[in-house]
Amino acid sequence: MYNICVLGAGYMGSAITFPLAKNGHNVNLWGTWLDDEIINACRKGLLHPKLKTKLLPTVKIFSSDELEAAVSGCDIIFMGISSEGFLDVFKKLLSVIDKNKNIFTLTKGFIDDNGKIRRTTAVARQLLNKRFAEADFQWTSIGGPVKALELCRDIPTVSIYASRTDENISAAGKFGTGNYRIIHTRDITGVELSADFKNVYATGMGVVEGLYGPEMAGNFHNFSSFIFNQSILEISRIVEKAGGNKKTVFDNAGMGDLYVTSQSGRNRKFGELIGKGMPPEEVFRTMLEGGELAEGYHTLKLGKIWLEENHPELLGYLPLFSALHQIIFGDMDPFEGLKDVLFKL
Amino acid sequence: MYNICVLGAGYMGSAITFPLAKNGHNVNLWGTWLDDEIINACRKGLLHPKLKTKLLPTVKIFSSDELEAAVSGCDIIFMGISSEGFLDVFKKLLSVIDKNKNIFTLTKGFIDDNGKIRRTTAVARQLLNKRFAEADFQWTSIGGPVKALELCRDIPTVSIYASRTDENISAAGKFGTGNYRIIHTRDITGVELSADFKNVYATGMGVVEGLYGPEMAGNFHNFSSFIFNQSILEISRIVEKAGGNKKTVFDNAGMGDLYVTSQSGRNRKFGELIGKGMPPEEVFRTMLEGGELAEGYHTLKLGKIWLEENHPELLGYLPLFSALHQIIFGDMDPFEGLKDVLFKL
Repeated sequence: MYNICVLGAGYMGSAITFPLAKNGHNVNLWGTWLDDEIINACRKGLLHPKLKTKLLPTVKIFSSDELEAAVSGCDIIFMGISSEGFLDVFKKLLSVIDKNKNIFTLTKGFIDDNGKIRRTTAVARQLLNKRFAEADFQWTSIGGPVKALELCRDIPTVSIYASRTDENISAAGKFGTGNYRIIHTRDITGVELSADFKNVYATGMGVVEGLYGPEMAGNFHNFSSFIFNQSILEISRIVEKAGGNKKTVFDNAGMGDLYVTSQSGRNRKFGELIGKGMPPEEVFRTMLEGGELAEGYHTLKLGKIWLEENHPELLGYLPLFSALHQIIFGDMDPFEGLKDVLFKL
Repeated sequence: MYNICVLGAGYMGSAITFPLAKNGHNVNLWGTWLDDEIINACRKGLLHPKLKTKLLPTVKIFSSDELEAAVSGCDIIFMGISSEGFLDVFKKLLSVIDKNKNIFTLTKGFIDDNGKIRRTTAVARQLLNKRFAEADFQWTSIGGPVKALELCRDIPTVSIYASRTDENISAAGKFGTGNYRIIHTRDITGVELSADFKNVYATGMGVVEGLYGPEMAGNFHNFSSFIFNQSILEISRIVEKAGGNKKTVFDNAGMGDLYVTSQSGRNRKFGELIGKGMPPEEVFRTMLEGGELAEGYHTLKLGKIWLEENHPELLGYLPLFSALHQIIFGDMDPFEGLKDVLFKL
């Protein structure tokens, strides 16, 4: 049995408490300063406002000013923060712990680290090494096709845990349930970049949906299938160049995760509204004001810079990524832009 | 410009006449004895009863008793027949031609050849070799994510043409349009087996849809994503053992085709009704009586025998295929059967 603290009480952070608590671990759930409303509702025993279900009764709830108490005595920390909030929370975490922890991250994505675009994990590794010079980097990145709303409702789910230390692998072996199957891989890069970039490509899948709309009753799936396929090919190229394993992409962490993300959710919705002809910046802002962050927008923007700085030779081999960038940040026509990708294979 | 005869006036045979005729080729469309109603409607200038659109006016229409006239003077034959009808039609074709033809097949699947289960292409090759002993096997298998209803409506579409002779490759170069992108591969086995087995796995995707139903508003996509991913992994194992290239499966011919097939259509519907609890045999029969052939049913039945005879060592590595076989031909509970696959990875 572990003492576990989950940081972030949004969708994924809250949902992961379900399999953890079902396994009998002691689970603390800490909400950031953006989660106060959620924490208040849960403390009153109400439905979790995002998951629309009650947390399990054994989960202990902590508000943003109780970080130290929340992590006290915990061996394992789950990061369930948005990539925008990750750095702030992670620095706070490091200031209240006095020894190295075993970290499981649900957060991936790119971070603007003083003007330099870097992967979350790279930033975290550097900060951890600075704080605990002698300690191992005990790090697990969690990916695969997992929607939070389904995880907390026991829909059969597979999740990919990427880590390289025996301690992490052994811990992950104690988190699965009869409906939550955990598979281990050592390919942290493959899992993380798949999870990051799938948001961009799910936006592309949404654009196709929006271009045609429900009145076409799905009679445009030749087009969306091609976009789906091209997405996976492009993610595999990115992962391979970045030192990950292509096989990770052609499996649950890539293909599976893109599938689930492109069927519904915020990134797909973001794309759909663009496909219907709304200006991308306006869609992004309006959704954000309604509490819906379309992560694909940030990954497209920051991911492009990251690619230019780290793998510029790749950009010519990502025609769909480039088209999406021009559709969302330029003035490319969504239909013509995506259709042209057919002839850039 | 080619003189082309398309055999079979159902969905795919009729739809392929659109890009062919748009390229200025002379196109004859021949209907089998099952297509008489379609042929009559098209001759009267009415909508094609399945495609719900008129054929292009340059397409010449031939009824089942006019096979010889239909193929006369044609260099290229497209086979747009169901796999059940393939052998009959192919033998008739061989009886009315006096030299080798360049054949493009939209039909794949398994054939019960006097009790022996064989791939369509293997049977066709043998018959052709017998008829034209000295001639090359001029054969192209067509795959990829192509729904007929969309192809004839100019929805952007990619299609994979698998062939090994210069003549076939060169001809295929003259069939594409601005909305119909043809990609060539030499991997006939990979394209064919992907096209065959995707019908089985699309049935599986349908079962998951049926288990939950529209009232769940898609809140079961963790499960369907896993099933999608597992399907592609299993198809890739089959293709590799049969001498094809795994890469073909992780691309438009496999991943793309399964995507389009699992979003809608007969195989998905067949699975959905099973997921809702109807007896599989009854679903198959009822659909067939309504003119809807769920090919996944036959591929599951014949494909299992083919696997047992040709690659028995594979069966232990196809837990989803085995579960579907037991759900449809045995008495396995659909939910438990599919969920258990999570723990057989």
